[in-house]
Amino acid sequence: MTTNAVVWGENVHEQNKPGVRELYPDGMHGTIAAALNADPAIRATTATLQEPEHGLTESRLASTDVLIWWGHTAHNAVADEIVERVIKRVWEGMGLILLHSAHFSKLFKRLMGTPGTLSYREAAERERIWVVNPRHRIAEGLGEYFTLEHEEMYGEPFAAPEPLETVFISWFSGGEVFRSGLTWRRGAGNIFYFRPGHETYPTYHDQMVHKVLRNAVKWAHTPQIAYSRVHQVPHVPVDMALEPIVDRNPKF
Amino acid sequence: MTTNAVVWGENVHEQNKPGVRELYPDGMHGTIAAALNADPAIRATTATLQEPEHGLTESRLASTDVLIWWGHTAHNAVADEIVERVIKRVWEGMGLILLHSAHFSKLFKRLMGTPGTLSYREAAERERIWVVNPRHRIAEGLGEYFTLEHEEMYGEPFAAPEPLETVFISWFSGGEVFRSGLTWRRGAGNIFYFRPGHETYPTYHDQMVHKVLRNAVKWAHTPQIAYSRVHQVPHVPVDMALEPIVDRNPKF
Amino acid sequence: MTTNAVVWGENVHEQNKPGVRELYPDGMHGTIAAALNADPAIRATTATLQEPEHGLTESRLASTDVLIWWGHTAHNAVADEIVERVIKRVWEGMGLILLHSAHFSKLFKRLMGTPGTLSYREAAERERIWVVNPRHRIAEGLGEYFTLEHEEMYGEPFAAPEPLETVFISWFSGGEVFRSGLTWRRGAGNIFYFRPGHETYPTYHDQMVHKVLRNAVKWAHTPQIAYSRVHQVPHVPVDMALEPIVDRNPKF
Amino acid sequence: MTTNAVVWGENVHEQNKPGVRELYPDGMHGTIAAALNADPAIRATTATLQEPEHGLTESRLASTDVLIWWGHTAHNAVADEIVERVIKRVWEGMGLILLHSAHFSKLFKRLMGTPGTLSYREAAERERIWVVNPRHRIAEGLGEYFTLEHEEMYGEPFAAPEPLETVFISWFSGGEVFRSGLTWRRGAGNIFYFRPGHETYPTYHDQMVHKVLRNAVKWAHTPQIAYSRVHQVPHVPVDMALEPIVDRNPKF
Repeated sequence: MTTNAVVWGENVHEQNKPGVRELYPDGMHGTIAAALNADPAIRATTATLQEPEHGLTESRLASTDVLIWWGHTAHNAVADEIVERVIKRVWEGMGLILLHSAHFSKLFKRLMGTPGTLSYREAAERERIWVVNPRHRIAEGLGEYFTLEHEEMYGEPFAAPEPLETVFISWFSGGEVFRSGLTWRRGAGNIFYFRPGHETYPTYHDQMVHKVLRNAVKWAHTPQIAYSRVHQVPHVPVDMALEPIVDRNPKF
Repeated sequence: MTTNAVVWGENVHEQNKPGVRELYPDGMHGTIAAALNADPAIRATTATLQEPEHGLTESRLASTDVLIWWGHTAHNAVADEIVERVIKRVWEGMGLILLHSAHFSKLFKRLMGTPGTLSYREAAERERIWVVNPRHRIAEGLGEYFTLEHEEMYGEPFAAPEPLETVFISWFSGGEVFRSGLTWRRGAGNIFYFRPGHETYPTYHDQMVHKVLRNAVKWAHTPQIAYSRVHQVPHVPVDMALEPIVDRNPKF
Repeated sequence: MTTNAVVWGENVHEQNKPGVRELYPDGMHGTIAAALNADPAIRATTATLQEPEHGLTESRLASTDVLIWWGHTAHNAVADEIVERVIKRVWEGMGLILLHSAHFSKLFKRLMGTPGTLSYREAAERERIWVVNPRHRIAEGLGEYFTLEHEEMYGEPFAAPEPLETVFISWFSGGEVFRSGLTWRRGAGNIFYFRPGHETYPTYHDQMVHKVLRNAVKWAHTPQIAYSRVHQVPHVPVDMALEPIVDRNPKF
Repeated sequence: MTTNAVVWGENVHEQNKPGVRELYPDGMHGTIAAALNADPAIRATTATLQEPEHGLTESRLASTDVLIWWGHTAHNAVADEIVERVIKRVWEGMGLILLHSAHFSKLFKRLMGTPGTLSYREAAERERIWVVNPRHRIAEGLGEYFTLEHEEMYGEPFAAPEPLETVFISWFSGGEVFRSGLTWRRGAGNIFYFRPGHETYPTYHDQMVHKVLRNAVKWAHTPQIAYSRVHQVPHVPVDMALEPIVDRNPKF
């Protein structure tokens, strides 16, 4: 079974910040897709904000098993129509992996029902990511922790709903903690938020991060037919009730 | 400690369906508010769709501890601005109780991140509501179950997120089940969905339903100052970090 | 990847109730194992109470990916030593599927920390099992519900911890409901409780039940190395701390 | 409404470690009880391992609303009979607050179904406790974090079940993190685990810790009658079913 993954990149910092372009000449999305494609069971392609329909046409989403999302400076430039389209596919069973600053994307806020707020600091400080849920599919092959020497800090409280499971918690040099790996389900769709990934640091070149991303794609993939019923509110006529009942409504 | 509750009613069926007006001459909102006011620790007032700002001004919401919401036929007539205003207050800690057809309200869908779909049937059939979480605050004073002889059926699957806790599950004569009492938290706000309450049945005159509503109001009330921090994304400067760190960012 | 499943049967009713023996000439465990083996990705064998060490030696459990457990009348005959042995393997990552009257087994009570109580009735009544978590791995290939025409009733409240996810809820002819499919994790082990399966009814010959069992085995299987660290409380010496710290303990 | 709290102390280190006796001349249990009694709505008393029945007679537990538990070096000296007695009361609705090294008590392991393992280090290092669930009842009156300058480190992974809610997460100087405040329900009983409290440090003299303890006691208290039904498995005869059914059992 191959998992079709689409890595969506905002692709703005890569254009307007030379340091980011140097770090990610293929874009963060390109780097992430390459890391996913290192696994023969994943077939990853990319899409960006600048493409028509942001690269996320109805037909493309229909064949997407898992969508990975990185956005930051242009959240508001994402068309509401595309956001709704993605959300509908998540409800139908498409997996969704929200990366780093996607905590403030329209997608995250709409699917979580929370504002996604947190505190932050850019000091290229050390982040140590602890696995608090050993043997969770997303933590496969990791040790007890792994370290990103240079990362942005995100601090609690993180305005996100209580998750199904907490997979990772980060320690930061400057004194904060953060729930860095959280899972939820919305409709039939599995959702994973993964904290690291500031654009000015080499996070998406890290081998442990690659493992997490590949694991998460496989975890998020639901290989069943789309759950289109999620959009419907079926009326069950009295004479089609599963148990025999009579209509006892008053006749006004 | 008194809990300030506002019962919001769409107040449309009460106007255009004679049977509903007869059943609820004070409106469903009025009946519910009276049931809440039977408890000296609750001070309940009402608000309706037809009032300016739907009766939910900034100042009124600021002094509301718990909002109860009933809507059905006019979900789309609720102004987006008011929906966002209510949501912000929920995040700050205002309790929210969503009744019956509110599963399809803008409020429910925005706070849950799911479509709120389900199946339904209007046959005035028997609903037996089982307490699956005995001694939960919301189930205080109930027995193992209570019965509503005439109700609309709502059937699973209910497209709602996995709750913090399931309090009630309903059995219907026609053969369906439904998770009739579910709790969530969004930001600092406690949220409770309570299934019963179709407009053409006397549900809101039922003594057990009254108990549930009073219990839920007390459960949802968070008597702490508003959590306004939930709207902010504070930047922590390097030199104000809690632990001494240096800025290691590359200087582009 | 093949999943090694062991179906453990108490195997008492099959010996002392002629009706059960006639219904399950190979034992319920044998019938279940055969249903699992219909899937080429599962290799199921059986074990019973009467075997030495109840058929669950250290070495056998070490190579077991998922254990399925059916017990009823002889819960107390299961040796505490074997119960502890199974629990240790669950913590290390072995999947566990607890069937029907296993709600009252030592295993269930020890792993849940609750008494597992419920109400019951044997009337060969209709049970309709609703899928409340569509596209969950355990519900794959099922429709919105399936029916067991003759089953024992189990009624709420079920004294079990709030689950990670509720997968199934049952409707009974006599008026009760029950959370029939619940998931938990304990240590690295996935646990699923599945309600149906009274010994005097043909439940384990049902094709839908077979699907659930096969799905559950695959869902519960964690194909990673045993999490033996779960048994340890490692001391981290000060001079091996990940960040440089000094011992500030008072020297008494 | 007054909450009857019993603070149970192992009371061994206070006897055999001079430094501990000096720090806690009234015992840790005495210090904690005094902190609770500073709130007029709480009436706290103490019990210790050395008393007959460890100070936890049937009648005393019957009138206890919330039990606070500190144990460390003598977990195995706690009689199984008393452990079972306490657990039964938790299931009936008595609140339970497990402190620090109680993660390895019989009580914790029995109620959680997990081994409670973690890593540790005694270096009197800094612990910063972050509130990740603002406005949770247990976090009332705290800021975004509070600091204990000298504490033992406990590190993840913590072998405990996924909680209902995570309230606190700790940051340690030496590089670890820990989920320091977790809630669960078992039967009708609310359970809270609170990490800090090593015997050689002045943690239980800390004003913020006092607040947490008082909050937790109030949160854990369920002012409803004991849920004794939790111990029973009632049989519902066919002719007493809530809906008319006939016995369709085969007559062997």
